[in-house]
Amino acid sequence: MKNSIRKITIGKPIHTDAVVAKLTAEKGKIPYLKREDKSFIYKLGTEDRIYGLGENVRGINKRGWIYESNCADQPNHTESQHSLYGAHNFFVIDGKERFGVFLDYPGKLTLDMGYTRMDEVRITPEDWNMDVYIIEGKEVLDIVKAFRTLIGRSYIPPKWAFGYGQSRWGYQSEDDIRKVVKGYRDNDIPIDSVYMDIDYMERFKDFTVNEETFPDFPKFVTEMEKEHIHLVPIIDAGVKIEKGYETYEEGVEKGYFCKEKDGTDFVGAVWPGRVHFPDFLNKDARKWFGKQYKFLLDQGIEGFWNDMNEPSIFYSEKNLEAVMKKIQKMDNRDMDMWEVFGFRDMVNGLANNPEDYKSFYHDMDGTKVRHDKVHNLYGYNMTRAAGEAFEELCPDKRILIFSRSSYIGMHRYGGTWMGDNQSWWSHLLLNLQMLPSLNMCGFLYTGADLGGFGADTTEDLVLRWLELGIFTPLMRNHAALGTREQEAYQFTNKEAFKNIIGIRYGLMPYLYSEYMKAALRDEMLFVPLAFAYPGDKYAQQTEDQLLLGESIMIAPVYTQNATGRYVYLPEKMKLVRMKSMKDIKTEVLEKGHYYIDVALDEVVFFIRPEKIVPYTMGGQFLEEAEKQELKTLHFVTDKAEYELYEDEGYEKDYENPNHYKTIKVEV
Amino acid sequence: MKNSIRKITIGKPIHTDAVVAKLTAEKGKIPYLKREDKSFIYKLGTEDRIYGLGENVRGINKRGWIYESNCADQPNHTESQHSLYGAHNFFVIDGKERFGVFLDYPGKLTLDMGYTRMDEVRITPEDWNMDVYIIEGKEVLDIVKAFRTLIGRSYIPPKWAFGYGQSRWGYQSEDDIRKVVKGYRDNDIPIDSVYMDIDYMERFKDFTVNEETFPDFPKFVTEMEKEHIHLVPIIDAGVKIEKGYETYEEGVEKGYFCKEKDGTDFVGAVWPGRVHFPDFLNKDARKWFGKQYKFLLDQGIEGFWNDMNEPSIFYSEKNLEAVMKKIQKMDNRDMDMWEVFGFRDMVNGLANNPEDYKSFYHDMDGTKVRHDKVHNLYGYNMTRAAGEAFEELCPDKRILIFSRSSYIGMHRYGGTWMGDNQSWWSHLLLNLQMLPSLNMCGFLYTGADLGGFGADTTEDLVLRWLELGIFTPLMRNHAALGTREQEAYQFTNKEAFKNIIGIRYGLMPYLYSEYMKAALRDEMLFVPLAFAYPGDKYAQQTEDQLLLGESIMIAPVYTQNATGRYVYLPEKMKLVRMKSMKDIKTEVLEKGHYYIDVALDEVVFFIRPEKIVPYTMGGQFLEEAEKQELKTLHFVTDKAEYELYEDEGYEKDYENPNHYKTIKVEV
Repeated sequence: MKNSIRKITIGKPIHTDAVVAKLTAEKGKIPYLKREDKSFIYKLGTEDRIYGLGENVRGINKRGWIYESNCADQPNHTESQHSLYGAHNFFVIDGKERFGVFLDYPGKLTLDMGYTRMDEVRITPEDWNMDVYIIEGKEVLDIVKAFRTLIGRSYIPPKWAFGYGQSRWGYQSEDDIRKVVKGYRDNDIPIDSVYMDIDYMERFKDFTVNEETFPDFPKFVTEMEKEHIHLVPIIDAGVKIEKGYETYEEGVEKGYFCKEKDGTDFVGAVWPGRVHFPDFLNKDARKWFGKQYKFLLDQGIEGFWNDMNEPSIFYSEKNLEAVMKKIQKMDNRDMDMWEVFGFRDMVNGLANNPEDYKSFYHDMDGTKVRHDKVHNLYGYNMTRAAGEAFEELCPDKRILIFSRSSYIGMHRYGGTWMGDNQSWWSHLLLNLQMLPSLNMCGFLYTGADLGGFGADTTEDLVLRWLELGIFTPLMRNHAALGTREQEAYQFTNKEAFKNIIGIRYGLMPYLYSEYMKAALRDEMLFVPLAFAYPGDKYAQQTEDQLLLGESIMIAPVYTQNATGRYVYLPEKMKLVRMKSMKDIKTEVLEKGHYYIDVALDEVVFFIRPEKIVPYTMGGQFLEEAEKQELKTLHFVTDKAEYELYEDEGYEKDYENPNHYKTIKVEV
Repeated sequence: MKNSIRKITIGKPIHTDAVVAKLTAEKGKIPYLKREDKSFIYKLGTEDRIYGLGENVRGINKRGWIYESNCADQPNHTESQHSLYGAHNFFVIDGKERFGVFLDYPGKLTLDMGYTRMDEVRITPEDWNMDVYIIEGKEVLDIVKAFRTLIGRSYIPPKWAFGYGQSRWGYQSEDDIRKVVKGYRDNDIPIDSVYMDIDYMERFKDFTVNEETFPDFPKFVTEMEKEHIHLVPIIDAGVKIEKGYETYEEGVEKGYFCKEKDGTDFVGAVWPGRVHFPDFLNKDARKWFGKQYKFLLDQGIEGFWNDMNEPSIFYSEKNLEAVMKKIQKMDNRDMDMWEVFGFRDMVNGLANNPEDYKSFYHDMDGTKVRHDKVHNLYGYNMTRAAGEAFEELCPDKRILIFSRSSYIGMHRYGGTWMGDNQSWWSHLLLNLQMLPSLNMCGFLYTGADLGGFGADTTEDLVLRWLELGIFTPLMRNHAALGTREQEAYQFTNKEAFKNIIGIRYGLMPYLYSEYMKAALRDEMLFVPLAFAYPGDKYAQQTEDQLLLGESIMIAPVYTQNATGRYVYLPEKMKLVRMKSMKDIKTEVLEKGHYYIDVALDEVVFFIRPEKIVPYTMGGQFLEEAEKQELKTLHFVTDKAEYELYEDEGYEKDYENPNHYKTIKVEV
């Protein structure tokens, strides 16, 4: 069976630039999906499974819940959520039939995946203007690859962005950051970057640095470079309203902010207080905003993270005024309990209020478009602004950029992180389950806040989470203001932290090579067992193991107090048990079910038959690790080859054949 | 090794009546616990496990988190909570040493169980007045039994309370309830009771019935009785302030409500709006409140649930006034974002405000005690009020009563339910994990809101949850106003619901017998594998299976889209697979690890060697099921006996030897 992609246009879709391939739209009926009143319907067989939808709650198999594409600043990643920060409308149904669907639609989309009726998919947009792509292929992986080719090559970060990074909302000054770096270096725990949250800015103004706490920022960047540390500052979507602040003044002057119906600039509030939101859907505004990153690039910065770009709105000026007016008229002596509830809901409803999203407008090529119609494109286009600017400002150099909010298409410009998770064991598993779904939608450079962002963490949770995190492209420990400090050196068993993070550095040759090949070939990096072993009924059930690249399977421990876990081996594999890069044990296991002991200070993974894993002894930072001699772990019974992708990690000559080497193992 | 219990009194403890055994307090050092500054310290070995703490978040092994005994109306049962509705200060440490600790202390207690340091328990009370009990025994089960004997026999409900019950916040009228009963009876889904949430009352006033929606309540009770349905109304802690309302008027007149410092009755707000809180710690007030249940007993009611008795306070009159005053002075044009956050936090902080709990007082035998000092006794004594009254009002008849808030001691007067959980798969597992911890603390009659209380549920979640719920003493499906309707007949696969609930009725002879023996012998009903198979390292790890009584092990499926799960067999067992009471398959499995297929419409459990499970074909309600012929499932290789406890289920002559029968199986 050959892959086929069909494009069907309904109504007058808003152009999202999600798709790069030129396809002619067909007319007539959409295969598989039956249009019924306000929805598309598909009847599910008992065994059908649904995969995809990118960043979302629940399992790898998305069947049984109702999702919503509606980018939101949603820190409660619980099972009852319908939407997180991204909108990724691609899914594959695998069962009695096998096909992929991409709904290129930037408004709110409801995806009832067997929730209301267990045997029915029901997809409901808010209006009928969209491009629908139906993709067929022999296996799920074929469908995914065809889709990925359709949407274009995934973002490739600089190599240093595969190093381990530390972050925390609350590093206030140079000295705070120096202390973190010292904490790592003094304990020989490898690290390559420190992320700077909103604290570094002057009163949360984008493209400013607080001169009191960072008196000579370029000098500090250089000092950190000497320590082999990259500083990665955050950029927020909202631009502070402040007289004399250049970005604000210029944006107003040029008319680059989102506007209310009457043409005045919309006023919301986020970290800086009252802000305007740049109109990233306006090409000129996007170009202008992108150029602003130069302020930091010029000071030696090589990486950024874009935040608050759903956009998050703590309150709008108008709504706050209306709410305060209502409250000030209330007489608490008269209030009954329902009124107090109403009062409370009104106050809590100030944030991310749907009415606010309907009250401002974009200028898309001269057309005024109400925000809610294109809501899901906002974060995407903020990151596109950065990506397009980097292309112009430093065409030959890779710049790190990843975003909280996203839409398919953004995967070409930057990565994502999985947002404001919590220090919960359940979010360690959610981290694993999001990886393949994001990969399906093009997002390869991704990772979760290791150890958990919100709530207080525990030593064992951070360790176990790192044991997954060493495998994710973005490997960052990040925590919220006010929570327990969770830098690796804060805990008792520093030796374990040093060793576990050290394993990341040791495995880099494999991890980087697999990332690059996946990006350059439009393939997934993290693959569910169900995709790799079609027809294997246990593989279809496996929601807590993944293949990572061509050679290995990971199966991290994700429950508290566990000293092991069950693992399913869909074929004979070699178990690798590491306490550190110096302490490696292996054992061959037949296909089947196992309970595998995994101590708190151990990493266990599995090598597939006739596969090779190149590694080194690692180092305290990537440059050091790069210099080490290349070795191999393997499960080869006769002879096998591994194609190693290797480059210096900064340039963009990805296709250079010199980057490919063949490693041969013969036993 | 003989069991030993030692009591050490520190300072002047407030009498809680948690313990019934008369023990002489020792002086001097407390074994195991080292007093250091403000805390008790115990150094943990690497392998030490901690069990107990009753109703709480996280696993069966409580090690690695920081808990708080501080009864709270807390509907977010997430991993980052420290306290739920109950305060159960009993735990056992099992490892290099083995001992139990009960801290009889009714104020706020912090239990750092290896959170701050993984190798340290640190227990911190708010003051040093408490009775400490240290219990030693050969095995964990011996320690638990000794403790249970210390605190007295667990509550025994009427037999009908083991039937399946349906509940929902939102059944407004007789007709709503008739519709529910019809829904079950028309679909042949067994049911024995319908729970009435706050809707049945006249404007949420305790001991009233809304005469518009229930025009002739005694007649309706009789009508339901004929349908073999018990109605179980809710009673809330707060008494509405309303002129002419008898309970209110009488309470005020007799001085039976909690008072502010100046002696005026404290005013809080809960469902009825402004209320006073009965002073359940005052013997006379308790007696008076208990007598109020007669209003409903006289109308044919035989069971109740006590709610909102932490007590939950939506706001206090004084605090609301203060907050409104502050807000009304605010000028939103001047507000910065932090002020808006402060404003929002102030509004959200109206509910269950710690300052409110410090602002009212109890009269304990003539002594004025500030509420926060005895906070954890409040719900306990509300249920004690009911239990003591039932003893007087209907001495020979068992009355169903269970409570949301509790403290050890309350287990003698009533059961508990696990509070306002959510329709989350993770709460199905939490339900299982709470069972043994509650049993350790004396709470045998318990269960969770099956299908989940808050948030929208799914058909598969309700089915899977019922597959655990059929084993829990309280088997109730309950949901919150505004959530998806989740009565068993609302879903597509009604046949599965009928069969699964039918299995509960078939297994009743075993379930009831085991409950009664556990209660009468101070034993656990649900036992962690770690307790039953000491020294088995896999049993120590097992957090998702339980022994239920002497004969069986349960291992429910608790993940979405799973068609099976891993199960550990700590010894040879017989797998029982049931689609219904008519479709039973068995298979003997050796000790070891298994992946067991469990279809969505199946119940799987395991019979231990040489054990017997009596059952019948069940029925549409318990009385019908009782008439069926007794059969046995068993895993007997030669001959074995089962001691069956059987009574008519209403009376209290528990010790009557006629209730015991021996069932013999020989093969």
